[in-house]
Amino acid sequence: MMNSDRLKTLLENVKSGALSIDDAVNSLKTLPYEDLSFARIDTHRALRRGAPEAIYSEGKTPEQIAAIARVISDSGQMVLATRASHSLYLELAEKFKDITWHTQARIITIGTLPEPDLSRRILVITAGTTDIPAAEEAAVTAAAMGCSVEKLYDAGIAGLHRILDNIDLLRSVSVIVAVAGMDGALPAVAAGLVSCPVIAVPSSTGYGAGSGGIAPLLTMLNSCSPGVAVVNIDNGYGAGYLAALITGRNQ
Amino acid sequence: MMNSDRLKTLLENVKSGALSIDDAVNSLKTLPYEDLSFARIDTHRALRRGAPEAIYSEGKTPEQIAAIARVISDSGQMVLATRASHSLYLELAEKFKDITWHTQARIITIGTLPEPDLSRRILVITAGTTDIPAAEEAAVTAAAMGCSVEKLYDAGIAGLHRILDNIDLLRSVSVIVAVAGMDGALPAVAAGLVSCPVIAVPSSTGYGAGSGGIAPLLTMLNSCSPGVAVVNIDNGYGAGYLAALITGRNQ
Amino acid sequence: MMNSDRLKTLLENVKSGALSIDDAVNSLKTLPYEDLSFARIDTHRALRRGAPEAIYSEGKTPEQIAAIARVISDSGQMVLATRASHSLYLELAEKFKDITWHTQARIITIGTLPEPDLSRRILVITAGTTDIPAAEEAAVTAAAMGCSVEKLYDAGIAGLHRILDNIDLLRSVSVIVAVAGMDGALPAVAAGLVSCPVIAVPSSTGYGAGSGGIAPLLTMLNSCSPGVAVVNIDNGYGAGYLAALITGRNQ
Amino acid sequence: MMNSDRLKTLLENVKSGALSIDDAVNSLKTLPYEDLSFARIDTHRALRRGAPEAIYSEGKTPEQIAAIARVISDSGQMVLATRASHSLYLELAEKFKDITWHTQARIITIGTLPEPDLSRRILVITAGTTDIPAAEEAAVTAAAMGCSVEKLYDAGIAGLHRILDNIDLLRSVSVIVAVAGMDGALPAVAAGLVSCPVIAVPSSTGYGAGSGGIAPLLTMLNSCSPGVAVVNIDNGYGAGYLAALITGRNQ
Amino acid sequence: MMNSDRLKTLLENVKSGALSIDDAVNSLKTLPYEDLSFARIDTHRALRRGAPEAIYSEGKTPEQIAAIARVISDSGQMVLATRASHSLYLELAEKFKDITWHTQARIITIGTLPEPDLSRRILVITAGTTDIPAAEEAAVTAAAMGCSVEKLYDAGIAGLHRILDNIDLLRSVSVIVAVAGMDGALPAVAAGLVSCPVIAVPSSTGYGAGSGGIAPLLTMLNSCSPGVAVVNIDNGYGAGYLAALITGRNQ
Amino acid sequence: MMNSDRLKTLLENVKSGALSIDDAVNSLKTLPYEDLSFARIDTHRALRRGAPEAIYSEGKTPEQIAAIARVISDSGQMVLATRASHSLYLELAEKFKDITWHTQARIITIGTLPEPDLSRRILVITAGTTDIPAAEEAAVTAAAMGCSVEKLYDAGIAGLHRILDNIDLLRSVSVIVAVAGMDGALPAVAAGLVSCPVIAVPSSTGYGAGSGGIAPLLTMLNSCSPGVAVVNIDNGYGAGYLAALITGRNQ
Amino acid sequence: MMNSDRLKTLLENVKSGALSIDDAVNSLKTLPYEDLSFARIDTHRALRRGAPEAIYSEGKTPEQIAAIARVISDSGQMVLATRASHSLYLELAEKFKDITWHTQARIITIGTLPEPDLSRRILVITAGTTDIPAAEEAAVTAAAMGCSVEKLYDAGIAGLHRILDNIDLLRSVSVIVAVAGMDGALPAVAAGLVSCPVIAVPSSTGYGAGSGGIAPLLTMLNSCSPGVAVVNIDNGYGAGYLAALITGRNQ
Amino acid sequence: MMNSDRLKTLLENVKSGALSIDDAVNSLKTLPYEDLSFARIDTHRALRRGAPEAIYSEGKTPEQIAAIARVISDSGQMVLATRASHSLYLELAEKFKDITWHTQARIITIGTLPEPDLSRRILVITAGTTDIPAAEEAAVTAAAMGCSVEKLYDAGIAGLHRILDNIDLLRSVSVIVAVAGMDGALPAVAAGLVSCPVIAVPSSTGYGAGSGGIAPLLTMLNSCSPGVAVVNIDNGYGAGYLAALITGRNQ
Repeated sequence: MMNSDRLKTLLENVKSGALSIDDAVNSLKTLPYEDLSFARIDTHRALRRGAPEAIYSEGKTPEQIAAIARVISDSGQMVLATRASHSLYLELAEKFKDITWHTQARIITIGTLPEPDLSRRILVITAGTTDIPAAEEAAVTAAAMGCSVEKLYDAGIAGLHRILDNIDLLRSVSVIVAVAGMDGALPAVAAGLVSCPVIAVPSSTGYGAGSGGIAPLLTMLNSCSPGVAVVNIDNGYGAGYLAALITGRNQ
Repeated sequence: MMNSDRLKTLLENVKSGALSIDDAVNSLKTLPYEDLSFARIDTHRALRRGAPEAIYSEGKTPEQIAAIARVISDSGQMVLATRASHSLYLELAEKFKDITWHTQARIITIGTLPEPDLSRRILVITAGTTDIPAAEEAAVTAAAMGCSVEKLYDAGIAGLHRILDNIDLLRSVSVIVAVAGMDGALPAVAAGLVSCPVIAVPSSTGYGAGSGGIAPLLTMLNSCSPGVAVVNIDNGYGAGYLAALITGRNQ
Repeated sequence: MMNSDRLKTLLENVKSGALSIDDAVNSLKTLPYEDLSFARIDTHRALRRGAPEAIYSEGKTPEQIAAIARVISDSGQMVLATRASHSLYLELAEKFKDITWHTQARIITIGTLPEPDLSRRILVITAGTTDIPAAEEAAVTAAAMGCSVEKLYDAGIAGLHRILDNIDLLRSVSVIVAVAGMDGALPAVAAGLVSCPVIAVPSSTGYGAGSGGIAPLLTMLNSCSPGVAVVNIDNGYGAGYLAALITGRNQ
Repeated sequence: MMNSDRLKTLLENVKSGALSIDDAVNSLKTLPYEDLSFARIDTHRALRRGAPEAIYSEGKTPEQIAAIARVISDSGQMVLATRASHSLYLELAEKFKDITWHTQARIITIGTLPEPDLSRRILVITAGTTDIPAAEEAAVTAAAMGCSVEKLYDAGIAGLHRILDNIDLLRSVSVIVAVAGMDGALPAVAAGLVSCPVIAVPSSTGYGAGSGGIAPLLTMLNSCSPGVAVVNIDNGYGAGYLAALITGRNQ
Repeated sequence: MMNSDRLKTLLENVKSGALSIDDAVNSLKTLPYEDLSFARIDTHRALRRGAPEAIYSEGKTPEQIAAIARVISDSGQMVLATRASHSLYLELAEKFKDITWHTQARIITIGTLPEPDLSRRILVITAGTTDIPAAEEAAVTAAAMGCSVEKLYDAGIAGLHRILDNIDLLRSVSVIVAVAGMDGALPAVAAGLVSCPVIAVPSSTGYGAGSGGIAPLLTMLNSCSPGVAVVNIDNGYGAGYLAALITGRNQ
Repeated sequence: MMNSDRLKTLLENVKSGALSIDDAVNSLKTLPYEDLSFARIDTHRALRRGAPEAIYSEGKTPEQIAAIARVISDSGQMVLATRASHSLYLELAEKFKDITWHTQARIITIGTLPEPDLSRRILVITAGTTDIPAAEEAAVTAAAMGCSVEKLYDAGIAGLHRILDNIDLLRSVSVIVAVAGMDGALPAVAAGLVSCPVIAVPSSTGYGAGSGGIAPLLTMLNSCSPGVAVVNIDNGYGAGYLAALITGRNQ
Repeated sequence: MMNSDRLKTLLENVKSGALSIDDAVNSLKTLPYEDLSFARIDTHRALRRGAPEAIYSEGKTPEQIAAIARVISDSGQMVLATRASHSLYLELAEKFKDITWHTQARIITIGTLPEPDLSRRILVITAGTTDIPAAEEAAVTAAAMGCSVEKLYDAGIAGLHRILDNIDLLRSVSVIVAVAGMDGALPAVAAGLVSCPVIAVPSSTGYGAGSGGIAPLLTMLNSCSPGVAVVNIDNGYGAGYLAALITGRNQ
Repeated sequence: MMNSDRLKTLLENVKSGALSIDDAVNSLKTLPYEDLSFARIDTHRALRRGAPEAIYSEGKTPEQIAAIARVISDSGQMVLATRASHSLYLELAEKFKDITWHTQARIITIGTLPEPDLSRRILVITAGTTDIPAAEEAAVTAAAMGCSVEKLYDAGIAGLHRILDNIDLLRSVSVIVAVAGMDGALPAVAAGLVSCPVIAVPSSTGYGAGSGGIAPLLTMLNSCSPGVAVVNIDNGYGAGYLAALITGRNQ
């Protein structure tokens, strides 16, 4: 590990007399934040455990994204770019091999996704079909972090049997990610049926009062069923990442 | 009818020449709003059909309330005072006979409630026990308007079986009034199970983001299940009144 | 009916000894959510009573909508797609017969609308001309559910005579749907004049503080006249559906 | 007038040579903001035309209020203290003669109110009885500024005939101040019936969504009827002051 | 006047015996809302005094606007269409003579504007140049109602001398319309300097917290200087109309 | 198990002919929701795994709470009452043995807390001392569900070294619960330093814009560091419950 | 300096062989956050330069406050407790000498305030008398940090001459702290007149829309005059601290 | 100076008797606001000290901007146009020499920027790359006012080492401008590490609850670290201007 190496070299130079103690003290005073780089290295370790480096594409130019992706890619890690347009994909596809366009998730991945770890099973459910993009963002993110992801879409509470029909599936996984817009009641209903954590993702579908995802966000924060973790509106990436961290706790 | 009489007199005076046409035109310009008094009379008819005259007690002095109640009572109608305190009840009880204090509903009624009409069955349900005051306000109001009211309290979605166990009851009534705070998901779940209208009452229980009833109000306005009518937060009176109007449609 | 048939077959097998009681118990344990399908079947019954299956078109691709419409249409039910664009209509018109484009309502129907039931009269009123799309959405929805729908548009309170001139019409129907933007006062004024339920639809017309329908929504929730049921901003579909449910109570 | 005197003295010194022109220029450069005191003097003139000096009592100690009132009173003007408690009145009554406690308006006046000027007729109307405090604040303020004030309380739109019955009164005044809570529709309805300005005062009565006066404030800002001037929630003082300014335009 | 004519004819028929009294009573029962048309006629009178019939163009098709304009125009009144685009003007210009496009006000007028009445002087001021459209909307509206309108633009409080330099102008008019975005402080500053009413128009210029006009709206509602009347954000039409009503009080 | 027994009896009656197949079908149609009682039993199982039955005390009378607690206690489970006052504790202490008052957490527990499971380590951190009540609520809840809970209070970002000094502790646990008011930045900072999930609890400390916990809630939902799960403002119970569920995943 | 000493010792041990290089690397990995303690020490230096350690008293018990104050006091620094009640003062006065109760500022100081540095002149102004508590909080804080503080209270824009009369004073200081509620326009007006930074403090005085300080906060954030720094509502402490930091820049 | 000249002439006329004292008094009463023009001249002096005249380009036509720029430019001052598009630059480039397009800052400057004053060092930092436009707007503004500007971009708290690595840089400058969106925590973290003022700029990057910059704005207003000055969302110009004023305090 580089920083340890640098430290060792410095200390060896002190031991050998090549570096005076006062100069070493001065050098080390500037190190602490390099020591904090250890945190960075720890992050690297976390990444090797499955967390892809993510690029939030909105507000960045294709050039910026390509440059960041190059650094990540060259370091041997998988690249995961969220909120990506198809045109961005076409631009990156000219520069990177092993690149995949996850249409509904609006995610570009560069590199090979890990094999799904069947001991880390996640279920992603949605209330309606318009909630699918955020759900797919969560699913691809968790899969990129090594989870085994199953899906159950369009199972909202207006037809309660759709969720009840699948209660065995719900009870068999380690984490549920539940995406819902409008009344946002699905996560609370699901959490009442299972004993695993439910990650609730408000989606910005719908219109009128509480539109833009505010109504389901408030519903989820006020869930009568405990065991519900809320992330920001449309934040499928955050939900997938959190789900992977939680299942990673098994290791 | 008086106004017709007045009109006839006026026209007879025109015919006889006792009133000039120009003066008659001027008089008639002032009449229309007396004609609108007909609406008042029609309102009276509606009241005789079971709608008690309601007094919203907050912000009124006991003296004001007693005076209004006296007018209503003397006209032979039932008095219904909402948001009433027990001390108000004690004050009124010294002045009125046949007065009842509906503790949980915080309603005072003066006069005899009508016999429940079994063809106008209403079910009032709540998600939790703290939603009961608004539910009782709805129940007493609808009962005062002649409805037959049944209740199912503490049947929120965190334990879905509580509502599903009673699905036959839900399907047997003409209107459901559903009161819920926090996630406010009960009305949407109920509406997905029945084919009668569901009147949703957000209650101001709970805390944090969307507290004061805003979270359940938005949930209810955004219900994925159609057939949900929303009233203002804690407005049990409005829900009961609306339920009675809807069942009154049978007549 | 299929589920009853399946149950019968199972029971006949029990009776004949072809199925052991223990196996039957196990089978029936998995049935409950199929039993909940009965709710679905009940919904089917409701649909046969006039409720068209609705597709909310926004956020769905034409392909998705066509696929859903095909399932509904093949089951012999009417299709009702809301928030539909004219281009969606053109796409669907290539695939479906008996398809109608309701321009102002932005609704596509596939199949024949039922004959209006004159015992289920609904009046749709608007404050202004810009409220007409939501009003038409309500009118087409209620008509598709079998109601007899009348309309009175541009009758806002700035010229009170416009609503007062039609007071007999207002008093003759079973339900009023009132659409209003800006001050949103029309439903409260109308409710003060009649004894039937008034369904209030805030419309998103207008500008400035409380724009997007928030101002009329709050006005309607705070109506001084009881008997007002509120739906979400621009939710003409929900208002029409609710109106049809209420008039359906007569049956 | 002092400032004119100071100016004259200065100029006389210039004329006599006692003050050099350069020194006079320097002095005058510092004067302008004393000249702005002329604006103050103009305010004095306005006050003599009927505007009492107002003290907003909330957040001030009785001592502070007494001190301010003493200065105003000693200058020969009427004192008008708004949002005053009865205990404040009792404290001031020990120090000031000719003091009046306007109970419902929560206003204390010190000094004699002017004779009502019948050419400056103002009508104050309210939707309900709980709107009366703000209405009375407006009425007392306008009366203190010399207007002739009439009142019509509890004339909300839930019973439209109450306002229509008095249309001649509404049409006979120079300005209408309309106070309403909850749906806040009264000013818009009134403005549709008259050709004088209507000053709309949202009141903080009511509960639930839009409570605290927000709902009626938005209703009033979005009035479909033009000719509506809005002031802040419960700001009866501002409404009365504005009404008096408008009628003062006659002079 | 037509309605009076109809009434007269009816009464003459009663007098002559051509109409029975009972039939006349029945006719008159249906008249009240025609009597309310008297209000309309009164409005007509008001219009003859200078109030043009206004069409809010947004959300209406050019065909609808042309049809409404034709009715107004044919009745001999001036047409005033607000929030009008230039393309709308071009369409209308093919159908109407004597049509004017007020570029900055985004108003189309059809018919001749009245001569300015010098006894009804209005001053329209703005804080910045981006506030000019709302200011021009107010100015054209007031001018169309017969007022004499002066303007003082870009006089915001960041350079206080700009408003103080013109204090004599401010003090010489009957009403000030003050348009401001961002901090919205201009009306309060102006009201502190004059004794006439100030109509405050928040404009939707600016960005960030309180953007869309919310910040200046709140500033204006909370003005420390009394005498400020607030209208909705960007509602120049309402401000001009109100200003004209106030100055009309002189007559 | 009762339901299986009932099913068997029914099927035996079918087999024996004592029950007709049609009657059996009708009976079975009503069963499913009894089958859902299985979910209830499963919930019981979950409870035996450590989840105490929680009573939210606000809005309930001491009598109601005592009655609910009696049922839970008699079923052999631990009782956990949140948002409990000391006076409630004194009342319950007269009726229950083995009752504990957790002062700072405002929690009453009845029954013995489980031994902490050292494989389920949770760290609760706060930004300031005023965040401690919500933190203690989380800590007691998680402890009652069997977790091993450590605490690090008053470690907000204004003195970053306080959190950095304890980075080894942060990195050694399975879940971090981070409570913060005002800027709410602590969870995001913590999440950037560790690879376990961070449950963020906004607290309602502070004043001014975004007070009542809105500012930290928004900060937490917008955390730049992924891996943050948000619960409602002051919802320490929800955070502790969620933390316990997550660590329970190890089993 | 201790840390340098510790580093030297460590390095000397490496040099002497008393510490292996690997152990030294491990030791140094834990150092950075002790290095961050340097920041702490630097903060101490900053404090010696005049910044008193502040205790926000709300939500803390008198015992907690006394304990914190003891630590600060024993380290030789001044204690400054904000939002302090008089009863807190009485409790602390029994335990600390040299304690002062700043009544209007609601601040308790323990220790001697520094001599005012006349090269660091700050002017605190308010729009009204109810803004004085926040202003005094700023003034005492800045004085405690060594500034020379002048005050000009009740100089709001409703009487513009009050601020203009003192323009020389405004232009003579290094920083202005301007506190205002309601319309919040004072800081923008002041900033337009001077070339020093203006720190704007919204105060929570007033009522109605935008009350609680929201209206002046938005006004200040949207100031047309640049050079305005905003702090949170009623945050006089933050304003005084910031003012002191800015003037400290001279050193 | 003209105004002094006019004053002298007037006084000479008084001295010579050409102007009576009374007439002079009347003339001088009208002068004050011309005297306030002195403030304008003082502003000129401020400008000569480095503050460029700024034009906010949004909502202005290129012609208006060119005209304003011409006046400023002809008076010998630098022009600084913010929120400028590239097409505006191209239009102005045809009319002005010495014009520069600052791409990322979206600023056009006309004239030569002053030499950076190394005694006025400002550091501009951002949390992410999407915050750079507001940061560049601040940097160019401060540079145009003579400051020496350094930059540190993409140093958000998700990777704390990025800011800690540069702590010496942070501690070496006179003012820090910190731009952050989403959680907005960077300014609070920075302020905890330094003793200079930190100007916090919320940026409108991000999505979901609190988007548009509301979340970071609230975070910054609620910073636990004192010494933070907040400006409006995306207001880089205001931050740069304020930073320059603060450093200007050294002079």
